[in-house]
Amino acid sequence: MSANDLKGFSLIGASRGSIGGAVFHGVNPATGESLQPIYHSAGAQEIDEAVQLAAAASADLARRSGTERAALLRAIAEELENARADFERLVPLETALPTARAGGELGRTTGQLRLFADLVEEGSWIDARIDHADPQRQPLPKPDLRSLLRPIGPVVVFGASNFPLAFSVAGGDTASALAAGCPVIVKAHPAHPATSERAGLAITAAVARCGFPAGTFSLLFDAGHEAGAALVRHPLVRAVAFTGSTAGGRALMDLAATRAQPIPVFAEMGSINPVFVLPAALVARTDAIANQLHASVLQGVGQFCTSPGLIVIPAGPAGDDLRDRLRDRFAASTAAAMLTAGIAQRHAEGAAQLGRRDGVMVLVAPAQAAGTAQPNLFETDAERFIADVMLQEEVFGPTSLIVRVRDDAQMRELAAALPGQLTATLLADTDDEIAAAALIETLTNVAGRVLMNGVPTGVEVSAAMVHGGPYPASSDARSTSVGTAAIERFARRVCYQNLPDALLPAALQEANPLRILRLVDGARALR
Amino acid sequence: MSANDLKGFSLIGASRGSIGGAVFHGVNPATGESLQPIYHSAGAQEIDEAVQLAAAASADLARRSGTERAALLRAIAEELENARADFERLVPLETALPTARAGGELGRTTGQLRLFADLVEEGSWIDARIDHADPQRQPLPKPDLRSLLRPIGPVVVFGASNFPLAFSVAGGDTASALAAGCPVIVKAHPAHPATSERAGLAITAAVARCGFPAGTFSLLFDAGHEAGAALVRHPLVRAVAFTGSTAGGRALMDLAATRAQPIPVFAEMGSINPVFVLPAALVARTDAIANQLHASVLQGVGQFCTSPGLIVIPAGPAGDDLRDRLRDRFAASTAAAMLTAGIAQRHAEGAAQLGRRDGVMVLVAPAQAAGTAQPNLFETDAERFIADVMLQEEVFGPTSLIVRVRDDAQMRELAAALPGQLTATLLADTDDEIAAAALIETLTNVAGRVLMNGVPTGVEVSAAMVHGGPYPASSDARSTSVGTAAIERFARRVCYQNLPDALLPAALQEANPLRILRLVDGARALR
Repeated sequence: MSANDLKGFSLIGASRGSIGGAVFHGVNPATGESLQPIYHSAGAQEIDEAVQLAAAASADLARRSGTERAALLRAIAEELENARADFERLVPLETALPTARAGGELGRTTGQLRLFADLVEEGSWIDARIDHADPQRQPLPKPDLRSLLRPIGPVVVFGASNFPLAFSVAGGDTASALAAGCPVIVKAHPAHPATSERAGLAITAAVARCGFPAGTFSLLFDAGHEAGAALVRHPLVRAVAFTGSTAGGRALMDLAATRAQPIPVFAEMGSINPVFVLPAALVARTDAIANQLHASVLQGVGQFCTSPGLIVIPAGPAGDDLRDRLRDRFAASTAAAMLTAGIAQRHAEGAAQLGRRDGVMVLVAPAQAAGTAQPNLFETDAERFIADVMLQEEVFGPTSLIVRVRDDAQMRELAAALPGQLTATLLADTDDEIAAAALIETLTNVAGRVLMNGVPTGVEVSAAMVHGGPYPASSDARSTSVGTAAIERFARRVCYQNLPDALLPAALQEANPLRILRLVDGARALR
Repeated sequence: MSANDLKGFSLIGASRGSIGGAVFHGVNPATGESLQPIYHSAGAQEIDEAVQLAAAASADLARRSGTERAALLRAIAEELENARADFERLVPLETALPTARAGGELGRTTGQLRLFADLVEEGSWIDARIDHADPQRQPLPKPDLRSLLRPIGPVVVFGASNFPLAFSVAGGDTASALAAGCPVIVKAHPAHPATSERAGLAITAAVARCGFPAGTFSLLFDAGHEAGAALVRHPLVRAVAFTGSTAGGRALMDLAATRAQPIPVFAEMGSINPVFVLPAALVARTDAIANQLHASVLQGVGQFCTSPGLIVIPAGPAGDDLRDRLRDRFAASTAAAMLTAGIAQRHAEGAAQLGRRDGVMVLVAPAQAAGTAQPNLFETDAERFIADVMLQEEVFGPTSLIVRVRDDAQMRELAAALPGQLTATLLADTDDEIAAAALIETLTNVAGRVLMNGVPTGVEVSAAMVHGGPYPASSDARSTSVGTAAIERFARRVCYQNLPDALLPAALQEANPLRILRLVDGARALR
């Protein structure tokens, strides 16, 4: 298989979609040129076929052992690595992201697949619980009860625009759903169709190689929103995962809520990722903080979910100094191509709108050329920020708003007024510790991840990670889309009462043949 | 405190509601007589006050240790036990349930509170995870990441009609939400207001005794649906728990989904709880099965969420024999008062409707006197049952539908066609094992709990229990409303990155001062 195999058709299990629907092209955002091949939108029948295949594969996938699922996830990682040269060519072409980023993101993507492989191979994630019977109990005998987490069924994943590998076709949502034992139908993001198709081919090759049913994975292309909506409405779909804008995520949530049988939507959406600069740190390392924040806002042309869109700085000369240094660095930064012309246009409009709000001072706001973004920086005060919800909305791209606060108390007041966030960051020194402790308590209610003396960009994939947060950061604050806990989104607990050992899943049999950690009569045990 | 303290007003934290809203009475369903005192519906201002108090108490509750929360839960159990005589008088008066049931349900309620007390005192339920830093890692250093489950904030609990203690004011939803560290606002079920007020007084006494903030608990009365709707719409409420009808639960789901900030609704709703009688068991113990099923359908006048409304029996003479024995037992059963006149009326209407469907044969369908239910039994075939969704809907009360199946294959076909269920039961002998294994695999996709050679009525409160299931059995198949896993509904994971040890919650500090089981660098450890 090679990039020459790219055909521009959906992957319906092991088959190809057909000509019929609207067509579209990938576009090189750096040049505006249309790319080959032509992509064909999936029709209603193809969408239904993909879901039917997935539903038919559900029972097979649910029966597969953790070892088998791990083998599939590792095979996908290998197939993706085999396509490294293709991704290093296609990703920059379709997204204007640099080649090094394509390679780095591929490493993150395969690492993520292997992390889930290790998790399900070990097997304890299913949280097996056993409560033994007590026939003598008064007033009623106690039954034998055993439960575990089981896959929920077909999951629809929407590829994100900004991580063409790690949050797209073979990204974290797909990895965690397959790990849980759920078939996956990906709706490709139209901004990187060739990258999507190449990743899809890697997955279908791995599915075939590992002897999984064809319905384990499908990839659907669509020029617009129809295929996505049809998937969310399809009665056999059991959950939806999405990374993107608040408007897009909310539309899917609303659609799923009006189904005859509502299903959960796990949408990771908008966040302005506040950074709080505390007084002692501000004085001790003004220049280092300016460098750190400038680099974080500009990373990936600001096209990260965790890009810091809000920088909270104390009033006074030290704060003025940091503000000025940030202004100088932002002003000296050059334009860069964004992922798509549309994203660049929305960035330019969002930044312009921010600059026009009452009480907002423009620090840096260069004219924006089509398709590109040049960093913007604005400043306002805490009263204004708290009162104007428009100032609390994400502008996706390299744009940030500085908010000046009178004192620690006003910093906390601002923190408490924030809508839900993916992250909240404190830049604090030892002398800031009392203020920091109070702020952390407040921010714990606001954000999914609270971090100190770092930058929010860069999301580690590990057991403890949370990439989620109260609405509108995500649709369900109780979930994460990154890290091993992401698997819990796609599993439900099923209980078996008084079943003979032979009829129980291996994970619940008395002898614990899988050697997993279980909760037995209230105590964690390997027995 | 005594039953003489019942005033008929809402409990807004430590204060009492006021005269103003619509009034209503408890009613003795056995006699139709109105009971004292008069109950006053909570007004819009009182509702807002209760939620504001809860929101203000949230931070305090989140800070409380597991030991402190355990003390509160045990104090509530003690206060409830101190009111045993009141409950043994009030419950039968308001619900027509027998005194022994009131006592038994009180034991279940206090046992449940103490189970959650043990869980949070031990503390490992918060699933603390630690991934240590690796500053040397290439290409990027690895940060220190630590996460745990934290309370989500104010929870609204709707008391159920059918378990005036165990699924009501101080029931499983309240116990699990308080255990998680969430303030609770209960909307009392209007069918047992005095029982509700008495339980509410027990909780407020415990809250005061344990030094918890008054906003920890409020109890609101309402003659209609307005207070409940206002609570679900209130912007400071973070989750909803409900047990009742599918229509009621769906209305709350729809309301919550249209909020500016949508919140999860955990609704435990309708279920027909299919029972499958397999061929060998059918022949081996026809009479015992008839007795067992008859008793299960009639238990509590059929007013259990897990009452078997569907009995699947093979065609042929042995099946005819079981059908006839069931018919004889149902026909010989007497009428009993239901929880309310409305419930009795809906039962009579539902049973009559079932009997009028095409292809449904009436086996037992006595005239129903107002306020009471006399058992009904109907029969149809599998084709008819699968084709007619009306036959798949719950009739709440002592009414059951027998469906005859040709063979094992049709039994599986019927199982696969079922809407989501709380439970599915197999009555099977050793010789049924092959058919049973196939059926269990199918039913695992349909139900939250699959049980064998028992009856679904009677829901154990333990770690492994699942009381939930795919929609419409519950709003979210990934949750349970009974058992210790119920606490997970009210918690969200929060991650801390690179925080100094002193600023971390105790559960995440390096020395593990709480001695809880944690996931450290991928391995479960007490260190």
